Amino acid sequence: VRHAVILAGGSGTRLWPASRRARPKQLLALARPGESLVAAATAIGRAIAHDRVLLVTAEAQVEATRAMLPGIELLVEPVGRNTAAAVGLAGATLAQRDPDAVLAVLPADQHVTDRHGFERALDTALAAAEAEDVIATIGITPTRPETGFGWLELAVPSESNVTRAVEVLRFVEKPDRATAEAYVASGRYLWNAGIFCLRASRLLAELDVHLPATGRAVREIARDPSVARSLYPSLPSVSFDHGVMEKVSRIVAVPAAIGWDDVGSWAALPAMRGTDASGNTCVGATLVVEGHNNVIVSDDATLIATVGIDDLVVVKSGDAILVVHKDRAQEVRKVIDALSSKGLARYL
Amino acid sequence: VRHAVILAGGSGTRLWPASRRARPKQLLALARPGESLVAAATAIGRAIAHDRVLLVTAEAQVEATRAMLPGIELLVEPVGRNTAAAVGLAGATLAQRDPDAVLAVLPADQHVTDRHGFERALDTALAAAEAEDVIATIGITPTRPETGFGWLELAVPSESNVTRAVEVLRFVEKPDRATAEAYVASGRYLWNAGIFCLRASRLLAELDVHLPATGRAVREIARDPSVARSLYPSLPSVSFDHGVMEKVSRIVAVPAAIGWDDVGSWAALPAMRGTDASGNTCVGATLVVEGHNNVIVSDDATLIATVGIDDLVVVKSGDAILVVHKDRAQEVRKVIDALSSKGLARYL
Repeated sequence: VRHAVILAGGSGTRLWPASRRARPKQLLALARPGESLVAAATAIGRAIAHDRVLLVTAEAQVEATRAMLPGIELLVEPVGRNTAAAVGLAGATLAQRDPDAVLAVLPADQHVTDRHGFERALDTALAAAEAEDVIATIGITPTRPETGFGWLELAVPSESNVTRAVEVLRFVEKPDRATAEAYVASGRYLWNAGIFCLRASRLLAELDVHLPATGRAVREIARDPSVARSLYPSLPSVSFDHGVMEKVSRIVAVPAAIGWDDVGSWAALPAMRGTDASGNTCVGATLVVEGHNNVIVSDDATLIATVGIDDLVVVKSGDAILVVHKDRAQEVRKVIDALSSKGLARYL
Repeated sequence: VRHAVILAGGSGTRLWPASRRARPKQLLALARPGESLVAAATAIGRAIAHDRVLLVTAEAQVEATRAMLPGIELLVEPVGRNTAAAVGLAGATLAQRDPDAVLAVLPADQHVTDRHGFERALDTALAAAEAEDVIATIGITPTRPETGFGWLELAVPSESNVTRAVEVLRFVEKPDRATAEAYVASGRYLWNAGIFCLRASRLLAELDVHLPATGRAVREIARDPSVARSLYPSLPSVSFDHGVMEKVSRIVAVPAAIGWDDVGSWAALPAMRGTDASGNTCVGATLVVEGHNNVIVSDDATLIATVGIDDLVVVKSGDAILVVHKDRAQEVRKVIDALSSKGLARYL
């Protein structure tokens, strides 16, 4: 039977200062007021898997996640070891109790405007995984030449929102701008959103071929969770894309135009929250005088006032304020690094 | 005998959000940690006038001023009517109790690095006012072609920090950039810092000629302070420079190179507080990653972190945050106007 696996163990440092160690971005209501990213992913998972949802998270986030999503089963990683280990642990755990388990794996740090379209695409991908015992991904129809994502190359161009999966020729790494523009123009390339469906038995078989130590360890932990703390830290820290997907001989994709975007940095907020007539995306107590295309977020009654400012990100959250140009929003990691090295970890 | 008059009734809106209605900029320790601008001006006043200091302030600021400067005599304006009325009221009040009073009038919103030099210049100016019954100003030797100040034109170039006053030909309005550069090059122009010395009797005589209604009203209030509330609001709101100084036939100046600057906007902070190796002026909890020539101020443990930001003012104070380019720091008034018109006066 079908199970949804939500990957919710990330730290989301590029969304600091809203995203903190004990309250990372998937727990924040960034995309929609009142609904966290992980709650949105869980709602999708419940819809496609008849309420069988397994949420993989980190120890530091268990309490906040449980409070936000009571009744959802949590699978807790003792340390973070990237997505190959997380997906493997979820697959082995579900295979242990259901040898016929089919998994839909969803990251928690994404936003989808067309939820019904998303559910239909997942249903098509799950059906392909069941019928052909193949890895079936969701390939997002690109809306811009994005250089921050990996892409999927199809054998032939495809319409979006079809009711069948199509053949994927290969995974391609983050392209440069010109290459990304050619991808968009060709119609043969889709965004890799890290969303895929496969049988648990297929997952374990692929791990045995491509990451055998991970395959062995996650089976052992599934049989006896008490060994997780000793076995898990030694697993290779590799993404499921790099460690498995790029090496698998046959993969299919369901092309989907569903308003998907990752919530990777503050620069993604306008796409989710919209903009005013001046191009500003303002959340909370803000006042923009003669400014355009800013992202301004205040988490309480603290007013953020700007005069003559364009293209800037200004975020007040808790005891910290971030100011960065929108086109350098990825570089917030540098603040995290500096805070760690300067002994200011209380702000992390 | 000599008296110091400190003009401390201003609102300082360009230093919002640190400067608020009930705690305007002169009450803030902007220039030196731990010493407010008004406390610094009062210390100068005590030194040159043997502790005879009269501080003119507004009703909204009485409580905070009294707490900060216990024992200093306050003269409270019922409403603000610019500096001609404030100086007139102080002069009439002091003349009432001391017909031979000589006044040194100092604004509270200034910063001087060379206090001893300042005291020597004031002593020279007071001596000129006493000996010649003339208005003797302090003329600041210019250190840049400042277009935000009025200037004094001398008959002939003069050295600074001399022990005599020199003749002023005229007051000139805020010049344009090219004119200001010519002023600096000529050696015949000084900044008008709004600092001047004169006998109280001379002050009242000049008011009778140039602002007769003000002269009459401040005398009446000095005799019976209870009429202030009815008389003061009707006085013309005009600066002492415009209303009196520009019209007086003879004025002298003491040229002074004493590290004087006004504290007019956040852009003035680097001159007072200094800069680090990257040109940043940081006060409080701040972290600048790859940034230059910023002014960043946090009033508590709230961290302000910037990445890749240059030439910006970022100030957190109380329940408000300001972000503005350094070269538009004068335009903070637009925030004040917008807050008033939008019903957000709680942030003023």
